[in-house]
Amino acid sequence: MSTATPLPAYNGYEYFVVSSPAEGVAHVEINRPKKLNAFSQPVWLEFGRVFDKLSADADVRAVVLSGAGDRAFTAGLDVQAGSQDGHIFGAETDVARKAKGLRAHIEEFQGSIGAMEKCEKPVICVLHGVSLGLAIDIACCADIRICASNTRFAVKEVDIGIPADIGTLARLPKIVGSHSWVKDVCMTARDFSATEAREVGFVSRVLGSKAEAVGAAVQLASLLAEKSPVAVQGTKELINYGRDHGTVDSLRYTAVWNSVVVQSEDIVKGLTSGLTKTKPKYAKL
Amino acid sequence: MSTATPLPAYNGYEYFVVSSPAEGVAHVEINRPKKLNAFSQPVWLEFGRVFDKLSADADVRAVVLSGAGDRAFTAGLDVQAGSQDGHIFGAETDVARKAKGLRAHIEEFQGSIGAMEKCEKPVICVLHGVSLGLAIDIACCADIRICASNTRFAVKEVDIGIPADIGTLARLPKIVGSHSWVKDVCMTARDFSATEAREVGFVSRVLGSKAEAVGAAVQLASLLAEKSPVAVQGTKELINYGRDHGTVDSLRYTAVWNSVVVQSEDIVKGLTSGLTKTKPKYAKL
Amino acid sequence: MSTATPLPAYNGYEYFVVSSPAEGVAHVEINRPKKLNAFSQPVWLEFGRVFDKLSADADVRAVVLSGAGDRAFTAGLDVQAGSQDGHIFGAETDVARKAKGLRAHIEEFQGSIGAMEKCEKPVICVLHGVSLGLAIDIACCADIRICASNTRFAVKEVDIGIPADIGTLARLPKIVGSHSWVKDVCMTARDFSATEAREVGFVSRVLGSKAEAVGAAVQLASLLAEKSPVAVQGTKELINYGRDHGTVDSLRYTAVWNSVVVQSEDIVKGLTSGLTKTKPKYAKL
Amino acid sequence: MSTATPLPAYNGYEYFVVSSPAEGVAHVEINRPKKLNAFSQPVWLEFGRVFDKLSADADVRAVVLSGAGDRAFTAGLDVQAGSQDGHIFGAETDVARKAKGLRAHIEEFQGSIGAMEKCEKPVICVLHGVSLGLAIDIACCADIRICASNTRFAVKEVDIGIPADIGTLARLPKIVGSHSWVKDVCMTARDFSATEAREVGFVSRVLGSKAEAVGAAVQLASLLAEKSPVAVQGTKELINYGRDHGTVDSLRYTAVWNSVVVQSEDIVKGLTSGLTKTKPKYAKL
Amino acid sequence: MSTATPLPAYNGYEYFVVSSPAEGVAHVEINRPKKLNAFSQPVWLEFGRVFDKLSADADVRAVVLSGAGDRAFTAGLDVQAGSQDGHIFGAETDVARKAKGLRAHIEEFQGSIGAMEKCEKPVICVLHGVSLGLAIDIACCADIRICASNTRFAVKEVDIGIPADIGTLARLPKIVGSHSWVKDVCMTARDFSATEAREVGFVSRVLGSKAEAVGAAVQLASLLAEKSPVAVQGTKELINYGRDHGTVDSLRYTAVWNSVVVQSEDIVKGLTSGLTKTKPKYAKL
Amino acid sequence: MSTATPLPAYNGYEYFVVSSPAEGVAHVEINRPKKLNAFSQPVWLEFGRVFDKLSADADVRAVVLSGAGDRAFTAGLDVQAGSQDGHIFGAETDVARKAKGLRAHIEEFQGSIGAMEKCEKPVICVLHGVSLGLAIDIACCADIRICASNTRFAVKEVDIGIPADIGTLARLPKIVGSHSWVKDVCMTARDFSATEAREVGFVSRVLGSKAEAVGAAVQLASLLAEKSPVAVQGTKELINYGRDHGTVDSLRYTAVWNSVVVQSEDIVKGLTSGLTKTKPKYAKL
Repeated sequence: MSTATPLPAYNGYEYFVVSSPAEGVAHVEINRPKKLNAFSQPVWLEFGRVFDKLSADADVRAVVLSGAGDRAFTAGLDVQAGSQDGHIFGAETDVARKAKGLRAHIEEFQGSIGAMEKCEKPVICVLHGVSLGLAIDIACCADIRICASNTRFAVKEVDIGIPADIGTLARLPKIVGSHSWVKDVCMTARDFSATEAREVGFVSRVLGSKAEAVGAAVQLASLLAEKSPVAVQGTKELINYGRDHGTVDSLRYTAVWNSVVVQSEDIVKGLTSGLTKTKPKYAKL
Repeated sequence: MSTATPLPAYNGYEYFVVSSPAEGVAHVEINRPKKLNAFSQPVWLEFGRVFDKLSADADVRAVVLSGAGDRAFTAGLDVQAGSQDGHIFGAETDVARKAKGLRAHIEEFQGSIGAMEKCEKPVICVLHGVSLGLAIDIACCADIRICASNTRFAVKEVDIGIPADIGTLARLPKIVGSHSWVKDVCMTARDFSATEAREVGFVSRVLGSKAEAVGAAVQLASLLAEKSPVAVQGTKELINYGRDHGTVDSLRYTAVWNSVVVQSEDIVKGLTSGLTKTKPKYAKL
Repeated sequence: MSTATPLPAYNGYEYFVVSSPAEGVAHVEINRPKKLNAFSQPVWLEFGRVFDKLSADADVRAVVLSGAGDRAFTAGLDVQAGSQDGHIFGAETDVARKAKGLRAHIEEFQGSIGAMEKCEKPVICVLHGVSLGLAIDIACCADIRICASNTRFAVKEVDIGIPADIGTLARLPKIVGSHSWVKDVCMTARDFSATEAREVGFVSRVLGSKAEAVGAAVQLASLLAEKSPVAVQGTKELINYGRDHGTVDSLRYTAVWNSVVVQSEDIVKGLTSGLTKTKPKYAKL
Repeated sequence: MSTATPLPAYNGYEYFVVSSPAEGVAHVEINRPKKLNAFSQPVWLEFGRVFDKLSADADVRAVVLSGAGDRAFTAGLDVQAGSQDGHIFGAETDVARKAKGLRAHIEEFQGSIGAMEKCEKPVICVLHGVSLGLAIDIACCADIRICASNTRFAVKEVDIGIPADIGTLARLPKIVGSHSWVKDVCMTARDFSATEAREVGFVSRVLGSKAEAVGAAVQLASLLAEKSPVAVQGTKELINYGRDHGTVDSLRYTAVWNSVVVQSEDIVKGLTSGLTKTKPKYAKL
Repeated sequence: MSTATPLPAYNGYEYFVVSSPAEGVAHVEINRPKKLNAFSQPVWLEFGRVFDKLSADADVRAVVLSGAGDRAFTAGLDVQAGSQDGHIFGAETDVARKAKGLRAHIEEFQGSIGAMEKCEKPVICVLHGVSLGLAIDIACCADIRICASNTRFAVKEVDIGIPADIGTLARLPKIVGSHSWVKDVCMTARDFSATEAREVGFVSRVLGSKAEAVGAAVQLASLLAEKSPVAVQGTKELINYGRDHGTVDSLRYTAVWNSVVVQSEDIVKGLTSGLTKTKPKYAKL
Repeated sequence: MSTATPLPAYNGYEYFVVSSPAEGVAHVEINRPKKLNAFSQPVWLEFGRVFDKLSADADVRAVVLSGAGDRAFTAGLDVQAGSQDGHIFGAETDVARKAKGLRAHIEEFQGSIGAMEKCEKPVICVLHGVSLGLAIDIACCADIRICASNTRFAVKEVDIGIPADIGTLARLPKIVGSHSWVKDVCMTARDFSATEAREVGFVSRVLGSKAEAVGAAVQLASLLAEKSPVAVQGTKELINYGRDHGTVDSLRYTAVWNSVVVQSEDIVKGLTSGLTKTKPKYAKL
């Protein structure tokens, strides 16, 4: 996104470039193109920090995530780094003691990636090119997923001898429309195409190229950025809550949540703009 | 539905017309066509009472819901009435005190609309024309959704500055096949078409016109009305329970439920009719 | 599957034939073709025992299930046997006492069919021809569902006067993409086709004939049998857990689960094979 | 409570007397002393309406519940009325159809008694004399339970051939400190004394006589009535939520709840009064 | 219990003696006194089978469990047998493969002991003498716990280097009144006395000797055996459900459960006996 | 604890002193005695960091927490600091925007205090002197609570006009034996004594003085420090899990957890030490 304005507050990151292609929109790029944007521990820790910051940054109203470069959204775990991981291949030999370290390691990893789901701003994930393993865990934490037609998807973890553990297996069964398909792609680790991803509802749109997909995502993000952030961010929270809870609990939580929201100025602006056919301007959040 | 028999027991309602287009079938029409069938508080309270009554009415075995007139299923909340709502715009200034009133208000609203989900009879919702905001909350409480090809759907609440709070965000993530799409339409408040609704599984059928859609719904309702009401109503209850609970709990609940059902005469009639190839006639429920 | 090797360890069964069409793959056939593979109590008890055995059999890495003969996967409950069922039609007249027997009966039945879901090996269910009632309960317990184009599906229980109680209503709302469709087929008991099953995500593939479908299933099972069984079986467990639990609980369970898995030799083999571009050979599980 | 001021707004009830023994305190008496305050359907429906009204009545800040007369808090279900109950002894003979009526009947009964738990004001239940069956269901819905030393408690339902179904078995295991004791008294239907009730934590105080117990309850209620109603009512809600949910969910719900509460004037008054050592005066809620 | 009648149907067991000290009462004794009634795998598998049989045996209405001999209820796991356990000390070296065997082993063990909780008849557990480790897991599955004053309790598993895994840690926090105490005894593995067990509500009664405790248990069991088994067994089920579920779910389950129960003859007998002051005689269940 | 060895790794903290009074034991003191150990934001953030560090510090096997000085465990929230809290009293006037800041603020606070519950080492909390408000939230996160006889407890939040929101209302209903008492102390904000705390099971021991209480806690911690850390830490985790989940889920989680633990050397050491009557020496964790 060459025309995007840099966001100075996000200059200090090593693996991520954050720019602003439109008002209120942040575009996060995974910036390790020579490694196909693969993730080692420093990368995922930084990923978590970036999204924690975006969540609290009132200047940002919607986020687009993509990979840098033409080849990959991300190839997933940096296998070379992984094969030197002390938690897995370190000196500890007692099974329970090693397990404690591994548990902490996995939870830290889950927490860093999950920061994107916890980020209170809507996140549009643009998948393109190589999008393997961790790419799916990450995409599952986004709100809206769109992709380029050349995307090569795979839940790849079975091919390194483990079940996916950063969130795919927890979230995917609840966000697409065919459990049979979920088991198929997660157990075989086979590639699936943009078309297939669209058919099962994993992505909601397929664009011709990465550029088009990023463009469409920025446009969608801009639209979200003009809406009431009280409404948009609350919608994110309540849908995520609804996915994970029964109806009785969800309705109760919703009522408490909106007993605050309805006291905001945004409902006044929203109602007024509807009645007067003018475009409302909402304050930051 | 000019040929439908009026149902005298439902004469007293102001905003709803209830007729019987076929044996055992009640057709409920939201009857405020000049206001595009919009809902103010008296409307939703009456809506709840209508469905409470249908739930207990043994003469009714299946329900069809549509809007009166050609223009709208419902345009959602009556925004003019809403903009004079004392809970939102009243004199109370203390945030917590106002919140208590709002919580009660939202819960009453949720309860009225939810009466359709609690209604023990199957409900087929026919969406057509303008179907915005509350239209989706209502449709989410139905069992089966079909629509006319001219339906203009939108989860519109974000455009009045709030997240939808009458059930859409609690139920929609569990009843369609793409979470990405759910977030898209709920956060952007954009229109979506009958075709799109069909593709993601929100409606299970699209008919050419409102008349055809109502006709198809009545036909489907007639079919349900001929079935064992013990079986049909139990199926509604158990699917709703299954949507909201884990498998272990659902199976246990099912076993207790059917330990009653299997003692009904309907299983005898059902088995006999299967063996003798005759059409069973089931008693009311 | 005439070329399949018999599996001697499974010779003793009366209603099921188990053979091995490929290395590490077991093919279970419901073998009551004259009765359209219908299930009476001895059949479902044996079904449970077959899958309990497969779960613990380290020589088996993936399972294919189909019906014997060309006409049916299964016609469901053996209605003639059912109509003499002592729990339903026996001498007991006290409602609560009869209910206790029925509850135990239903739970035993649920447990036998559920053994396929609990079986730690992936199960690919091939539906074909007549696939009614219990056929759907069974298919819902499989991991991957594919079918022949001639499959005649129906959730048939409403037509014998009861809600389905062996698992369809508990599982189906979570494994396909349209709740509206689920309610439709479960309440009307109407037939649905392979195409429709594919569209809503119930099956993930439709093949031209039973033979082709079984062939495709065996091929898929062979692929799974070559993968790390630690990874494949863990994936099954974690997706099933994810379907039934919220994200917080699922991630925690996943972290504990993988704190074991990552200590297995399979991750070493998996990583090595990836780096060296060789095909790994995983030990049994 | 002869000195209590009548509360005119509650004059219209047939089975309940509501007076105000102290500012902000309502004293509800079950007023059927000749029948040992037993409950028939009209009684419990009115009970529900009384507590719905108290919940919304900003003049009431705390509630005391006792029985009228010296002999009984309540003897429980009015057995004579119960033995003519049409749902139980009516003409319907089909088990499933009868069950539907019974379910609705039980749920209406549960809902009426549960209105006291849902009532947003704190309720102090004073048990005294005969306190059988439904007495315990009711007491379980209160916030604080105290009793007179002459109280004769029993979970009596087993002696009419059914498990308690109005809430005792759902709530009691979570509100006292010994599951072994819960099973003992619920399965044997034996009497237990005030001392025993105190030891297991069912009541938190035993007073010498009914008069003393009511006096102590009124004093406690007066104390609660002086506190911030935002704080007291929120505390009731959050403890009830905490009883029924895991810690993760409870903390999240608490944070949302208090994000409103902390914006109330009450925290300012509370903090100021603490710093200035003056007694705060809180507005109604 | 020398005067107890043997129960021939239970003659075939190796490690358990089952007699009938009173009408409708079965007394199960763990019969390995020379080993302090310690449990090896064959013992716990048989334990499960005994309780499965009791659950279905309509002649048995209440169960008493104790250890044979004067010295011990049970010393817990048979450590000598345990130290030769193939799952723990066998040849398998791969961590994940060993874990699969261990998981199955623990689940089988949990299932066998849990059969006592699942047993639909009320179980009174009499603890006496040495009552260590597994003794507590077992006692947690009983409905009512009483003990002799000489009982030496301990949650002993920490002293063999593992957390208790057969149910103590899952159930104990919910069945006694002090979490602080639960953590204390579970983490230190220290002994606690009958008095302490009584104080925290783990047992509901302490008797002077084993003989007295068994006598009291038999008397209590006799009392339960005279009550309506529909009521008593339903009460067990609903309290266990209430312990594990929130109030909303529990009330709903209760309503469905009792919609059956209220159709039983037992309520008629119960109501009649109450009105006529005669002793009812309930049929078996 | 003048004889305690300082722990250099914990030197950098401003509000906490961490020493080692016995091998493997860390003693954390809240060190703001002039402010009665009250908590402002910097204090609770540091509290969280201390316990995160202890959780991962293999040299520490058990933790004792107390207040510094004779007067207070902690007086709770630093009300002076609180009354200048920007989240509460800052410039933001929009209710929803202010609520977002407050929610984040409360969650950060909950997270910092909850770090003690998440700390994998057992924590013994010694309450003494003034122990108000936040003191109870903190104590609820400990594993074992003991106190000095002079402790003055109160759930004080209602007196500043809000419900307690840092965990007391979420945890207390599940860790003591009387819901009636919980509601009493949480709604009245009244003081309660050590004796009362002991009676309801909030603390499991009362000692004469702070010094004795700390001494007893250190002794108990020393005992825990000698046990297998695999067993002790696993016990903590599984009891906390058991408190928050139903039995089915808890048993499943336990089986997976112990499938690791049983592969540790600690079970071998534990079993051997039992058979050889020697004292085992367990490696760090």
